[in-house]
Amino acid sequence: MSTTIQRGDQVVGELLQRINALIAEADVTYDEYQAAKQWLIDVGEAGEWPLLLDVFVEHAVEAQATRRRDGSEGSILGPYHLPDHPFLEPPFELPQRPDERGESLWISGRVTSADGRPLPGAVLDLWHADADGLYSGFSELPAGLLRGKVRADEEGRFAVRTIKPAPYTIPHAGPTGRLIAVCGWHPWRPAHVHLLVTAEGHEPLVTQLYLDDSEYLDGDIAGAVKPSLVVHPQPVGDHLEFEYEFRLAPAPSAAA
Amino acid sequence: MSTTIQRGDQVVGELLQRINALIAEADVTYDEYQAAKQWLIDVGEAGEWPLLLDVFVEHAVEAQATRRRDGSEGSILGPYHLPDHPFLEPPFELPQRPDERGESLWISGRVTSADGRPLPGAVLDLWHADADGLYSGFSELPAGLLRGKVRADEEGRFAVRTIKPAPYTIPHAGPTGRLIAVCGWHPWRPAHVHLLVTAEGHEPLVTQLYLDDSEYLDGDIAGAVKPSLVVHPQPVGDHLEFEYEFRLAPAPSAAA
Repeated sequence: MSTTIQRGDQVVGELLQRINALIAEADVTYDEYQAAKQWLIDVGEAGEWPLLLDVFVEHAVEAQATRRRDGSEGSILGPYHLPDHPFLEPPFELPQRPDERGESLWISGRVTSADGRPLPGAVLDLWHADADGLYSGFSELPAGLLRGKVRADEEGRFAVRTIKPAPYTIPHAGPTGRLIAVCGWHPWRPAHVHLLVTAEGHEPLVTQLYLDDSEYLDGDIAGAVKPSLVVHPQPVGDHLEFEYEFRLAPAPSAAA
Repeated sequence: MSTTIQRGDQVVGELLQRINALIAEADVTYDEYQAAKQWLIDVGEAGEWPLLLDVFVEHAVEAQATRRRDGSEGSILGPYHLPDHPFLEPPFELPQRPDERGESLWISGRVTSADGRPLPGAVLDLWHADADGLYSGFSELPAGLLRGKVRADEEGRFAVRTIKPAPYTIPHAGPTGRLIAVCGWHPWRPAHVHLLVTAEGHEPLVTQLYLDDSEYLDGDIAGAVKPSLVVHPQPVGDHLEFEYEFRLAPAPSAAA
Protein backbone atom coordinates (compact mmCIF):
# COMPACT_ATOMS: atom_id res chain seq x y z
CA MET A 1 0.00 0.00 0.00
CA SER A 2 1.52 3.31 -1.04
CA THR A 3 2.01 6.17 1.38
CA THR A 4 -0.62 8.23 -0.44
CA ILE A 5 -3.17 5.42 -0.19
CA GLN A 6 -2.42 4.81 3.48
CA ARG A 7 -2.94 8.50 4.15
CA GLY A 8 -6.18 8.66 2.12
CA ASP A 9 -7.51 5.59 3.89
CA GLN A 10 -6.63 6.98 7.31
CA VAL A 11 -7.74 10.59 6.89
CA VAL A 12 -10.86 10.04 4.76
CA GLY A 13 -11.80 6.94 6.76
CA GLU A 14 -11.49 8.88 10.00
CA LEU A 15 -13.47 11.82 8.62
CA LEU A 16 -16.31 9.54 7.53
CA GLN A 17 -16.28 7.85 10.94
CA ARG A 18 -16.55 11.23 12.67
CA ILE A 19 -19.40 12.36 10.44
CA ASN A 20 -21.28 9.10 10.85
CA ALA A 21 -20.72 9.05 14.62
CA LEU A 22 -22.15 12.57 14.81
CA ILE A 23 -25.22 11.44 12.85
CA ALA A 24 -25.90 8.90 15.59
CA GLU A 25 -24.98 11.15 18.53
CA ALA A 26 -27.01 14.11 17.30
CA ASP A 27 -29.84 11.87 16.04
CA VAL A 28 -29.70 13.37 12.54
CA THR A 29 -32.93 12.54 10.71
CA TYR A 30 -33.55 11.49 7.12
CA ASP A 31 -35.18 14.87 6.48
CA GLU A 32 -32.07 16.63 7.74
CA TYR A 33 -29.89 14.29 5.64
CA GLN A 34 -31.85 15.10 2.50
CA ALA A 35 -31.73 18.82 3.32
CA ALA A 36 -27.96 18.58 3.80
CA LYS A 37 -27.62 16.78 0.45
CA GLN A 38 -29.51 19.53 -1.36
CA TRP A 39 -27.51 22.20 0.48
CA LEU A 40 -24.21 20.62 -0.63
CA ILE A 41 -25.48 20.64 -4.23
CA ASP A 42 -26.46 24.29 -3.78
CA VAL A 43 -23.00 25.25 -2.44
CA GLY A 44 -21.44 23.97 -5.65
CA GLU A 45 -24.00 25.56 -7.95
CA ALA A 46 -23.49 28.91 -6.21
CA GLY A 47 -19.70 28.59 -6.61
CA GLU A 48 -19.30 28.91 -2.83
CA TRP A 49 -16.89 26.06 -2.00
CA PRO A 50 -13.88 28.42 -1.75
CA LEU A 51 -15.92 30.85 0.35
CA LEU A 52 -17.34 28.20 2.65
CA LEU A 53 -14.02 26.45 3.25
CA ASP A 54 -11.97 29.62 3.60
CA VAL A 55 -14.43 30.91 6.21
CA PHE A 56 -14.96 27.77 8.28
CA VAL A 57 -11.97 25.50 7.75
CA GLU A 58 -8.92 27.39 6.49
CA HIS A 59 -8.07 28.80 9.94
CA ALA A 60 -7.45 25.25 11.17
CA VAL A 61 -5.23 24.46 8.17
CA GLU A 62 -3.31 27.70 8.64
CA ALA A 63 -2.77 27.12 12.36
CA GLN A 64 -1.51 23.61 11.67
CA ALA A 65 0.74 24.60 8.77
CA THR A 66 2.46 27.35 10.76
CA ARG A 67 2.48 25.87 14.27
CA ARG A 68 6.26 25.38 14.40
CA ARG A 69 7.24 28.32 12.23
CA ASP A 70 9.48 31.01 13.64
CA GLY A 71 8.72 34.68 13.18
CA SER A 72 5.42 36.55 13.04
CA GLU A 73 2.14 34.69 13.28
CA GLY A 74 0.08 34.68 10.10
CA SER A 75 -3.56 34.21 9.21
CA ILE A 76 -5.70 32.81 6.41
CA LEU A 77 -5.36 33.94 2.80
CA GLY A 78 -9.13 34.05 2.30
CA PRO A 79 -10.91 34.09 -1.05
CA TYR A 80 -10.11 37.68 -2.10
CA HIS A 81 -6.44 37.56 -2.99
CA LEU A 82 -5.58 38.30 -6.62
CA PRO A 83 -2.05 37.23 -7.54
CA ASP A 84 -1.23 39.83 -10.18
CA HIS A 85 -1.35 43.20 -8.46
CA PRO A 86 1.08 45.65 -10.06
CA PHE A 87 3.96 47.12 -8.07
CA LEU A 88 3.26 50.67 -6.88
CA GLU A 89 5.70 53.53 -7.31
CA PRO A 90 6.84 55.48 -4.25
CA PRO A 91 5.47 57.30 -2.34
CA PHE A 92 3.27 54.22 -1.97
CA GLU A 93 -0.48 54.66 -1.91
CA LEU A 94 -3.05 51.94 -2.68
CA PRO A 95 -5.24 52.98 -5.67
CA GLN A 96 -8.31 54.94 -4.60
CA ARG A 97 -11.23 56.68 -6.25
CA PRO A 98 -11.12 60.51 -6.18
CA ASP A 99 -13.95 60.49 -3.64
CA GLU A 100 -12.78 57.42 -1.72
CA ARG A 101 -14.49 57.35 1.66
CA GLY A 102 -12.88 56.19 4.90
CA GLU A 103 -10.30 57.75 7.22
CA SER A 104 -6.79 58.08 5.84
CA LEU A 105 -4.59 55.26 7.22
CA TRP A 106 -0.79 55.10 7.00
CA ILE A 107 0.82 51.72 7.47
CA SER A 108 4.54 51.51 8.00
CA GLY A 109 7.07 49.17 9.47
CA ARG A 110 9.82 46.76 8.69
CA VAL A 111 10.36 43.32 7.23
CA THR A 112 13.00 41.25 8.99
CA SER A 113 14.10 37.67 9.32
CA ALA A 114 12.86 35.75 12.36
CA ASP A 115 16.12 36.64 14.13
CA GLY A 116 15.69 40.35 13.47
CA ARG A 117 17.95 41.00 10.45
CA PRO A 118 16.35 43.49 8.02
CA LEU A 119 15.31 42.05 4.67
CA PRO A 120 16.04 44.67 1.98
CA GLY A 121 13.74 44.49 -1.06
CA ALA A 122 11.10 42.36 0.66
CA VAL A 123 7.75 42.57 -1.13
CA LEU A 124 4.47 43.38 0.61
CA ASP A 125 1.30 42.56 -1.32
CA LEU A 126 -1.64 44.37 0.30
CA TRP A 127 -5.40 44.11 -0.27
CA HIS A 128 -8.36 45.23 1.78
CA ALA A 129 -12.03 46.19 1.67
CA ASP A 130 -13.32 49.72 1.13
CA ALA A 131 -15.42 51.74 3.61
CA ASP A 132 -18.47 49.71 2.55
CA GLY A 133 -16.71 46.38 3.10
CA LEU A 134 -16.34 45.61 -0.63
CA TYR A 135 -13.27 44.20 -2.43
CA SER A 136 -12.24 45.17 -5.94
CA GLY A 137 -12.29 42.17 -8.26
CA PHE A 138 -15.26 40.74 -6.33
CA SER A 139 -17.70 43.66 -6.61
CA GLU A 140 -18.40 46.62 -8.86
CA LEU A 141 -15.42 48.54 -7.48
CA PRO A 142 -12.85 49.60 -10.12
CA ALA A 143 -10.27 46.90 -10.86
CA GLY A 144 -7.18 47.14 -8.67
CA LEU A 145 -8.77 49.44 -6.10
CA LEU A 146 -7.18 49.16 -2.63
CA ARG A 147 -4.70 46.55 -3.82
CA GLY A 148 -1.02 46.75 -4.64
CA LYS A 149 2.51 45.53 -4.10
CA VAL A 150 5.22 47.63 -2.50
CA ARG A 151 8.92 46.92 -2.09
CA ALA A 152 10.73 47.52 1.20
CA ASP A 153 13.89 49.66 1.12
CA GLU A 154 17.51 48.71 1.91
CA GLU A 155 16.69 48.55 5.61
CA GLY A 156 13.56 46.46 5.04
CA ARG A 157 11.42 49.50 5.78
CA PHE A 158 8.21 50.44 4.01
CA ALA A 159 5.35 52.95 4.30
CA VAL A 160 2.09 52.87 2.41
CA ARG A 161 -1.00 55.06 2.56
CA THR A 162 -4.52 53.84 2.19
CA ILE A 163 -7.93 54.26 3.81
CA LYS A 164 -9.37 52.51 6.82
CA PRO A 165 -11.31 49.41 5.76
CA ALA A 166 -14.70 48.62 7.27
CA PRO A 167 -15.87 45.38 8.90
CA TYR A 168 -17.87 43.41 6.40
CA THR A 169 -20.15 40.48 6.03
CA ILE A 170 -18.96 37.54 4.03
CA PRO A 171 -21.32 36.97 1.06
CA HIS A 172 -24.44 35.61 2.70
CA ALA A 173 -27.16 35.69 0.07
CA GLY A 174 -26.40 32.09 -0.92
CA PRO A 175 -26.07 28.68 0.74
CA THR A 176 -23.22 29.81 3.04
CA GLY A 177 -25.50 32.57 4.34
CA ARG A 178 -28.37 30.09 4.78
CA LEU A 179 -26.09 27.92 6.90
CA ILE A 180 -25.07 30.88 9.04
CA ALA A 181 -28.72 31.88 9.51
CA VAL A 182 -29.88 28.39 10.44
CA CYS A 183 -27.13 28.27 13.07
CA GLY A 184 -28.02 31.69 14.49
CA TRP A 185 -24.53 32.99 13.71
CA HIS A 186 -23.61 36.36 12.14
CA PRO A 187 -21.70 36.78 8.86
CA TRP A 188 -19.30 39.55 10.01
CA ARG A 189 -15.54 39.83 9.89
CA PRO A 190 -13.74 42.61 11.82
CA ALA A 191 -11.99 45.38 9.84
CA HIS A 192 -8.61 44.17 8.55
CA VAL A 193 -5.85 44.61 6.00
CA HIS A 194 -4.56 41.52 4.19
CA LEU A 195 -0.84 41.16 3.50
CA LEU A 196 1.32 38.62 1.76
CA VAL A 197 4.94 39.34 2.63
CA THR A 198 7.75 37.64 0.70
CA ALA A 199 11.53 37.82 0.70
CA GLU A 200 14.16 35.64 -0.89
CA GLY A 201 15.23 32.69 1.22
CA HIS A 202 12.24 33.05 3.53
CA GLU A 203 8.81 31.51 3.87
CA PRO A 204 6.01 33.71 2.58
CA LEU A 205 4.00 35.26 5.40
CA VAL A 206 0.25 35.36 4.73
CA THR A 207 -1.36 37.55 7.35
CA GLN A 208 -4.14 39.93 8.27
CA LEU A 209 -3.88 42.93 10.57
CA TYR A 210 -7.02 43.75 12.56
CA LEU A 211 -7.88 47.29 13.65
CA ASP A 212 -8.29 47.42 17.43
CA ASP A 213 -11.40 49.60 17.36
CA SER A 214 -13.31 47.29 15.02
CA GLU A 215 -16.50 45.50 15.91
CA TYR A 216 -16.46 41.69 15.73
CA LEU A 217 -12.84 41.30 16.92
CA ASP A 218 -14.19 38.72 19.36
CA GLY A 219 -16.59 37.02 16.97
CA ASP A 220 -14.89 36.80 13.56
CA ILE A 221 -17.01 34.37 11.50
CA ALA A 222 -13.77 33.14 9.90
CA GLY A 223 -12.11 32.46 13.28
CA ALA A 224 -8.92 34.08 11.99
CA VAL A 225 -8.10 36.76 14.60
CA LYS A 226 -5.02 36.24 16.80
CA PRO A 227 -3.95 38.73 19.51
CA SER A 228 -0.58 39.39 17.84
CA LEU A 229 -2.39 40.52 14.67
CA VAL A 230 -4.40 43.30 16.34
CA VAL A 231 -2.91 46.74 15.56
CA HIS A 232 -3.52 50.04 17.32
CA PRO A 233 -3.77 52.95 14.85
CA GLN A 234 -3.10 56.36 16.43
CA PRO A 235 -4.36 59.69 15.16
CA VAL A 236 -1.47 61.80 13.79
CA GLY A 237 -2.57 65.11 12.27
CA ASP A 238 -5.33 64.37 9.74
CA HIS A 239 -4.77 60.63 9.54
CA LEU A 240 -4.36 57.39 11.50
CA GLU A 241 -1.15 55.43 11.49
CA PHE A 242 0.34 52.25 12.88
CA GLU A 243 3.59 50.33 12.56
CA TYR A 244 4.11 46.59 12.29
CA GLU A 245 7.18 44.40 12.08
CA PHE A 246 6.89 41.34 9.87
CA ARG A 247 9.40 38.67 10.91
CA LEU A 248 9.79 35.99 8.26
CA ALA A 249 10.88 32.41 8.95
CA PRO A 250 13.75 30.99 6.93
CA ALA A 251 12.62 28.90 3.95
CA PRO A 252 13.02 25.15 4.59
CA SER A 253 15.85 24.92 2.03
CA ALA A 254 17.60 27.99 3.42
CA ALA A 255 17.29 26.60 6.94
CA ALA A 256 18.76 23.24 6.01
CA MET B 1 -33.16 31.22 20.16
CA SER B 2 -35.48 28.94 18.21
CA THR B 3 -35.22 25.16 18.38
CA THR B 4 -34.10 25.04 14.74
CA ILE B 5 -31.31 27.53 15.38
CA GLN B 6 -30.16 25.76 18.55
CA ARG B 7 -30.00 22.52 16.57
CA GLY B 8 -28.13 24.12 13.63
CA ASP B 9 -25.65 25.72 16.01
CA GLN B 10 -25.05 22.46 17.88
CA VAL B 11 -24.87 20.03 14.97
CA VAL B 12 -23.04 22.23 12.44
CA GLY B 13 -20.79 23.66 15.14
CA GLU B 14 -19.87 20.17 16.32
CA LEU B 15 -19.27 18.97 12.74
CA LEU B 16 -16.91 21.88 12.06
CA GLN B 17 -15.08 21.21 15.33
CA ARG B 18 -14.59 17.57 14.38
CA ILE B 19 -13.33 18.43 10.90
CA ASN B 20 -10.97 21.08 12.23
CA ALA B 21 -9.72 18.82 15.02
CA LEU B 22 -8.95 16.15 12.43
CA ILE B 23 -6.99 18.68 10.38
CA ALA B 24 -4.72 19.21 13.37
CA GLU B 25 -4.52 15.54 14.44
CA ALA B 26 -3.81 14.26 10.93
CA ASP B 27 -1.55 17.23 10.10
CA VAL B 28 -3.53 18.08 6.95
CA THR B 29 -1.42 20.33 4.74
CA TYR B 30 -2.36 23.38 2.68
CA ASP B 31 -1.80 21.34 -0.49
CA GLU B 32 -4.22 18.70 0.76
CA TYR B 33 -6.71 21.41 1.74
CA GLN B 34 -6.57 22.95 -1.74
CA ALA B 35 -6.91 19.49 -3.33
CA ALA B 36 -9.95 18.79 -1.13
CA LYS B 37 -11.47 22.13 -2.14
CA GLN B 38 -11.11 21.31 -5.83
CA TRP B 39 -12.45 17.80 -5.24
CA LEU B 40 -15.59 19.16 -3.53
CA ILE B 41 -16.13 21.45 -6.52
CA ASP B 42 -15.66 18.45 -8.83
CA VAL B 43 -18.22 16.35 -6.90
CA GLY B 44 -20.86 18.98 -7.55
CA GLU B 45 -19.94 19.49 -11.20
CA ALA B 46 -20.14 15.73 -11.79
CA GLY B 47 -23.57 15.60 -10.12
CA GLU B 48 -22.22 13.08 -7.60
CA TRP B 49 -23.47 14.45 -4.26
CA PRO B 50 -26.36 11.94 -4.09
CA LEU B 51 -24.01 9.11 -5.06
CA LEU B 52 -21.29 10.09 -2.62
CA LEU B 53 -23.62 10.61 0.32
CA ASP B 54 -25.75 7.55 -0.34
CA VAL B 55 -22.62 5.40 -0.53
CA PHE B 56 -20.70 6.75 2.46
CA VAL B 57 -23.19 8.38 4.81
CA GLU B 58 -26.74 7.12 4.27
CA HIS B 59 -26.12 3.84 6.13
CA ALA B 60 -25.52 5.82 9.33
CA VAL B 61 -28.71 7.86 8.81
CA GLU B 62 -30.69 4.70 8.10
CA ALA B 63 -29.35 2.89 11.16
CA GLN B 64 -30.19 5.86 13.35
CA ALA B 65 -33.66 6.41 11.88
CA THR B 66 -34.70 2.79 12.38
CA ARG B 67 -32.87 1.89 15.59
CA ARG B 68 -36.01 1.59 17.70
CA ARG B 69 -38.34 0.38 14.98
CA ASP B 70 -40.11 -2.96 15.36
CA GLY B 71 -40.24 -5.47 12.52
CA SER B 72 -37.72 -6.30 9.82
CA GLU B 73 -34.46 -4.46 9.58
CA GLY B 74 -34.09 -2.23 6.53
CA SER B 75 -31.27 -0.74 4.52
CA ILE B 76 -30.45 2.35 2.50
CA LEU B 77 -32.59 3.53 -0.39
CA GLY B 78 -29.55 4.37 -2.52
CA PRO B 79 -29.55 6.61 -5.59
CA TYR B 80 -31.29 4.25 -8.05
CA HIS B 81 -34.90 4.26 -6.88
CA LEU B 82 -37.44 5.68 -9.35
CA PRO B 83 -40.76 6.50 -7.69
CA ASP B 84 -43.11 5.87 -10.60
CA HIS B 85 -42.75 2.22 -11.53
CA PRO B 86 -46.01 0.83 -12.90
CA PHE B 87 -47.85 -1.98 -11.11
CA LEU B 88 -47.27 -5.36 -12.74
CA GLU B 89 -50.09 -7.78 -13.59
CA PRO B 90 -49.97 -11.32 -12.17
CA PRO B 91 -48.20 -13.63 -12.60
CA PHE B 92 -45.60 -11.06 -11.59
CA GLU B 93 -42.36 -10.85 -13.51
CA LEU B 94 -40.03 -7.86 -13.60
CA PRO B 95 -39.67 -6.54 -17.21
CA GLN B 96 -36.79 -8.21 -19.05
CA ARG B 97 -35.30 -8.15 -22.51
CA PRO B 98 -35.97 -11.23 -24.67
CA ASP B 99 -32.34 -12.26 -24.26
CA GLU B 100 -31.98 -11.16 -20.65
CA ARG B 101 -28.93 -12.83 -19.16
CA GLY B 102 -28.68 -14.09 -15.58
CA GLU B 103 -30.11 -17.10 -13.77
CA SER B 104 -33.86 -17.11 -13.27
CA LEU B 105 -34.69 -16.05 -9.69
CA TRP B 106 -38.09 -16.39 -8.00
CA ILE B 107 -38.71 -14.26 -4.93
CA SER B 108 -41.70 -15.04 -2.77
CA GLY B 109 -42.84 -14.44 0.76
CA ARG B 110 -45.21 -12.53 2.91
CA VAL B 111 -45.79 -9.03 4.24
CA THR B 112 -46.96 -8.87 7.82
CA SER B 113 -47.19 -6.41 10.66
CA ALA B 114 -44.40 -6.48 13.23
CA ASP B 115 -46.55 -8.75 15.41
CA GLY B 116 -47.12 -11.21 12.56
CA ARG B 117 -50.57 -10.35 11.21
CA PRO B 118 -50.69 -10.60 7.40
CA LEU B 119 -51.07 -7.32 5.54
CA PRO B 120 -53.37 -7.94 2.56
CA GLY B 121 -52.75 -5.64 -0.41
CA ALA B 122 -49.31 -4.53 0.78
CA VAL B 123 -47.23 -3.09 -2.08
CA LEU B 124 -43.69 -4.22 -2.92
CA ASP B 125 -41.69 -1.93 -5.17
CA LEU B 126 -38.65 -3.83 -6.50
CA TRP B 127 -35.61 -2.70 -8.45
CA HIS B 128 -32.24 -4.30 -9.11
CA ALA B 129 -29.27 -4.41 -11.44
CA ASP B 130 -28.95 -6.68 -14.47
CA ALA B 131 -26.32 -9.39 -14.97
CA ASP B 132 -23.82 -6.68 -15.88
CA GLY B 133 -24.56 -4.65 -12.75
CA LEU B 134 -26.46 -1.90 -14.60
CA TYR B 135 -29.73 -0.20 -13.56
CA SER B 136 -32.41 0.93 -15.99
CA GLY B 137 -32.94 4.69 -15.78
CA PHE B 138 -29.23 5.16 -15.02
CA SER B 139 -27.69 3.40 -18.04
CA GLU B 140 -28.58 2.52 -21.60
CA LEU B 141 -30.87 -0.31 -20.44
CA PRO B 142 -34.50 -0.01 -21.66
CA ALA B 143 -36.65 2.15 -19.37
CA GLY B 144 -38.39 0.16 -16.65
CA LEU B 145 -36.19 -2.92 -17.03
CA LEU B 146 -35.94 -5.00 -13.83
CA ARG B 147 -38.24 -2.62 -11.93
CA GLY B 148 -41.86 -2.89 -10.92
CA LYS B 149 -44.50 -2.82 -8.21
CA VAL B 150 -46.48 -5.86 -7.15
CA ARG B 151 -49.40 -6.15 -4.76
CA ALA B 152 -49.58 -8.87 -2.10
CA ASP B 153 -52.73 -11.02 -1.96
CA GLU B 154 -55.36 -11.31 0.81
CA GLU B 155 -52.91 -13.22 2.98
CA GLY B 156 -50.11 -10.76 2.39
CA ARG B 157 -48.36 -13.25 0.10
CA PHE B 158 -46.55 -12.42 -3.09
CA ALA B 159 -44.32 -14.12 -5.68
CA VAL B 160 -42.32 -12.41 -8.39
CA ARG B 161 -39.91 -13.74 -11.01
CA THR B 162 -36.81 -11.98 -12.17
CA ILE B 163 -33.17 -12.72 -12.91
CA LYS B 164 -30.26 -12.86 -10.53
CA PRO B 165 -28.54 -9.48 -10.30
CA ALA B 166 -24.76 -9.20 -10.37
CA PRO B 167 -22.49 -7.43 -7.93
CA TYR B 168 -21.55 -4.06 -9.33
CA THR B 169 -19.26 -1.16 -8.89
CA ILE B 170 -20.76 2.16 -7.94
CA PRO B 171 -19.96 4.74 -10.65
CA HIS B 172 -16.26 5.35 -10.20
CA ALA B 173 -15.11 7.27 -13.27
CA GLY B 174 -15.66 10.59 -11.47
CA PRO B 175 -14.64 12.25 -8.20
CA THR B 176 -16.24 9.56 -6.01
CA GLY B 177 -14.12 6.98 -7.82
CA ARG B 178 -11.02 9.15 -7.40
CA LEU B 179 -11.64 9.24 -3.65
CA ILE B 180 -12.03 5.48 -3.51
CA ALA B 181 -8.81 5.01 -5.47
CA VAL B 182 -6.80 7.42 -3.32
CA CYS B 183 -7.97 5.53 -0.23
CA GLY B 184 -7.10 2.14 -1.72
CA TRP B 185 -10.72 0.98 -1.39
CA HIS B 186 -12.77 -0.92 -3.99
CA PRO B 187 -16.02 0.35 -5.55
CA TRP B 188 -18.04 -2.89 -5.32
CA ARG B 189 -21.42 -3.66 -3.83
CA PRO B 190 -22.54 -7.30 -3.35
CA ALA B 191 -25.43 -8.59 -5.50
CA HIS B 192 -28.76 -7.41 -4.09
CA VAL B 193 -32.42 -6.71 -4.79
CA HIS B 194 -33.87 -3.40 -3.58
CA LEU B 195 -37.38 -3.33 -2.11
CA LEU B 196 -39.65 -0.63 -0.78
CA VAL B 197 -42.55 -2.31 1.03
CA THR B 198 -45.60 -0.28 2.04
CA ALA B 199 -48.94 -1.04 3.68
CA GLU B 200 -51.61 1.20 5.12
CA GLY B 201 -51.09 2.11 8.76
CA HIS B 202 -47.47 0.94 8.69
CA GLU B 203 -44.09 2.51 8.27
CA PRO B 204 -42.59 2.00 4.80
CA LEU B 205 -39.78 -0.56 4.85
CA VAL B 206 -36.83 0.36 2.63
CA THR B 207 -34.58 -2.64 2.33
CA GLN B 208 -32.10 -4.63 0.26
CA LEU B 209 -31.77 -8.41 0.15
CA TYR B 210 -28.26 -9.72 -0.45
CA LEU B 211 -27.57 -13.02 -2.21
CA ASP B 212 -25.52 -15.28 0.03
CA ASP B 213 -23.18 -16.46 -2.73
CA SER B 214 -22.21 -12.95 -3.80
CA GLU B 215 -18.74 -11.54 -3.61
CA TYR B 216 -18.22 -8.42 -1.47
CA LEU B 217 -20.77 -9.40 1.22
CA ASP B 218 -18.06 -8.57 3.74
CA GLY B 219 -16.79 -5.43 2.04
CA ASP B 220 -19.79 -3.52 0.69
CA ILE B 221 -18.49 -0.06 -0.23
CA ALA B 222 -21.86 1.35 0.93
CA GLY B 223 -21.65 -0.37 4.34
CA ALA B 224 -25.30 -1.40 3.99
CA VAL B 225 -25.23 -5.21 4.52
CA LYS B 226 -26.83 -6.59 7.70
CA PRO B 227 -26.93 -10.34 8.53
CA SER B 228 -30.75 -10.41 8.57
CA LEU B 229 -30.79 -9.13 4.98
CA VAL B 230 -28.73 -12.00 3.52
CA VAL B 231 -30.95 -14.51 1.67
CA HIS B 232 -30.15 -18.06 0.58
CA PRO B 233 -31.53 -18.85 -2.87
CA GLN B 234 -31.96 -22.59 -3.53
CA PRO B 235 -31.98 -24.28 -6.93
CA VAL B 236 -35.48 -25.58 -7.75
CA GLY B 237 -35.78 -27.13 -11.22
CA ASP B 238 -34.40 -24.60 -13.72
CA HIS B 239 -34.33 -21.62 -11.39
CA LEU B 240 -33.28 -20.29 -8.00
CA GLU B 241 -35.76 -19.24 -5.38
CA PHE B 242 -35.91 -17.79 -1.89
CA GLU B 243 -38.59 -16.61 0.50
CA TYR B 244 -38.55 -13.59 2.79
CA GLU B 245 -40.99 -12.24 5.34
CA PHE B 246 -41.23 -8.46 5.54
CA ARG B 247 -42.51 -7.38 8.97
CA LEU B 248 -43.64 -3.77 8.96
CA ALA B 249 -43.68 -1.52 12.04
CA PRO B 250 -46.89 0.33 12.85
CA ALA B 251 -46.93 3.93 11.60
CA PRO B 252 -46.35 6.45 14.41
CA SER B 253 -49.94 7.69 14.23
CA ALA B 254 -51.35 4.15 14.16
CA ALA B 255 -49.16 3.25 17.12
CA ALA B 256 -50.38 6.14 19.25
